[in-house]
Amino acid sequence: MTLSHGVDVRVGPGGHSGADASVVTLNGESVAVDAVAGVRDALGASDAAVTVETTLPLGAGFGVSGAVALGTAYGINAVYDRHRGENDLVSIAHCAEVTARTGLGDVVAQARGGLPIRLEPGGPDHGRLDGIPAAPRVEYVTFGSVSTEAVLSGDTTRLTAAGGRALADLRDAPTPSRLVELSRRFAREADLLTDRVADVIESVRDAGGDAAMAMLGDTAFAFGSGLSDAGYDPEVCAVHPGGATLRAAEHAESTPPDVE
Amino acid sequence: MTLSHGVDVRVGPGGHSGADASVVTLNGESVAVDAVAGVRDALGASDAAVTVETTLPLGAGFGVSGAVALGTAYGINAVYDRHRGENDLVSIAHCAEVTARTGLGDVVAQARGGLPIRLEPGGPDHGRLDGIPAAPRVEYVTFGSVSTEAVLSGDTTRLTAAGGRALADLRDAPTPSRLVELSRRFAREADLLTDRVADVIESVRDAGGDAAMAMLGDTAFAFGSGLSDAGYDPEVCAVHPGGATLRAAEHAESTPPDVE
Repeated sequence: MTLSHGVDVRVGPGGHSGADASVVTLNGESVAVDAVAGVRDALGASDAAVTVETTLPLGAGFGVSGAVALGTAYGINAVYDRHRGENDLVSIAHCAEVTARTGLGDVVAQARGGLPIRLEPGGPDHGRLDGIPAAPRVEYVTFGSVSTEAVLSGDTTRLTAAGGRALADLRDAPTPSRLVELSRRFAREADLLTDRVADVIESVRDAGGDAAMAMLGDTAFAFGSGLSDAGYDPEVCAVHPGGATLRAAEHAESTPPDVE
Repeated sequence: MTLSHGVDVRVGPGGHSGADASVVTLNGESVAVDAVAGVRDALGASDAAVTVETTLPLGAGFGVSGAVALGTAYGINAVYDRHRGENDLVSIAHCAEVTARTGLGDVVAQARGGLPIRLEPGGPDHGRLDGIPAAPRVEYVTFGSVSTEAVLSGDTTRLTAAGGRALADLRDAPTPSRLVELSRRFAREADLLTDRVADVIESVRDAGGDAAMAMLGDTAFAFGSGLSDAGYDPEVCAVHPGGATLRAAEHAESTPPDVE
């Protein structure tokens, strides 16, 4: 799902030393986001300065690395006049993220917005999408990180089988409540559930609601007021209907016409 | 292109007599929107009351009929618990619009948002899309209607050839300025340009800008400040990045959980 608590990426024309192409400024600090190196490289902009602001934690299942890669692709295209189409930019960010092993399907979903359903794997030239037609309120609590790379580098047979079952069942009834139910089942069947998320889910279900785990992070989420009703003090946002969007630069007069 | 000056569609559970399945209430008046009949029928909700509010004129090239059909499909799905996915709903509205001969590609573009590029014809299960990664300010002036049905019912050979050339050239450089240039060329080559729109385009180009014609309506548009710079007093809005979005009902407590 794409969240209104998103990631703002600003690209400047030059200013990055290029010594490490994965480095961005995230909430004022220099950090490495591996997928960014692939994007800078694919668009020939190793000197592009990338500044990221977000309230979401890295590595906690929110797809921040994918969002940074996607925002970098859109930003470089605009600032460096690369004249690429949206599919090209999404493909570049998707491939960079998959190569970095920090995510598999985040970028394509983030580009679409809403509650996407990935019918097939792959970038926008391959993988067909559908979506759940709803925009519910979202609550979440996060306890920390799970390494996506460690999971994707391990034996994913069980995970793939559980994912196939969940996807087939979701397509039969694509609603938000079914999404939570199937996500909860998937995390259990794929043996990904952390103890803390399992506790939250149990409490929410005892209170008459339902909750599931963010993939992949030590994070629980619910639609509506599932977490508050169970006594938690969650972060609250909404499903973002549009996904990745290009904003006008603050100093419009200094931007080329195509970026206005 | 999808505009922030959009169309709000509200669906009520029952209240429509069903005598004429195309009738909706548009800005307080009963009007027939042919595509709506197909949507009510496909989703088995002949009694669904459909109320539409918009500042955009019908028949002037803004795709209002397609937007009403699409909004009706999303609304019926939510209110009548039809549990359809987004692709199904878009397909239903698209087919209803094509059957009514009031538009060919509006609905699929409206569902995506932004500045979509239709790479292939057809609904979401067939036609691939790309998009121009930009969200420019939009200006428009409208003088009245052109009958989409009359154009689509006539000889479309010339129109199809001009469209193919414009699409190929746009894919080479998918930018807003190129979109306006190619739209202008398309309207001329396809012999669709009205005298009033031709006058506007000439004035805007004399003032150093560029403008084109809305398909199909007696309407001229420009990005940025093209029309104001030429002395017109245009309507002003923006490209809507998200396209069709489902809103929470005002009385959330009376809606089923999936619609919240």
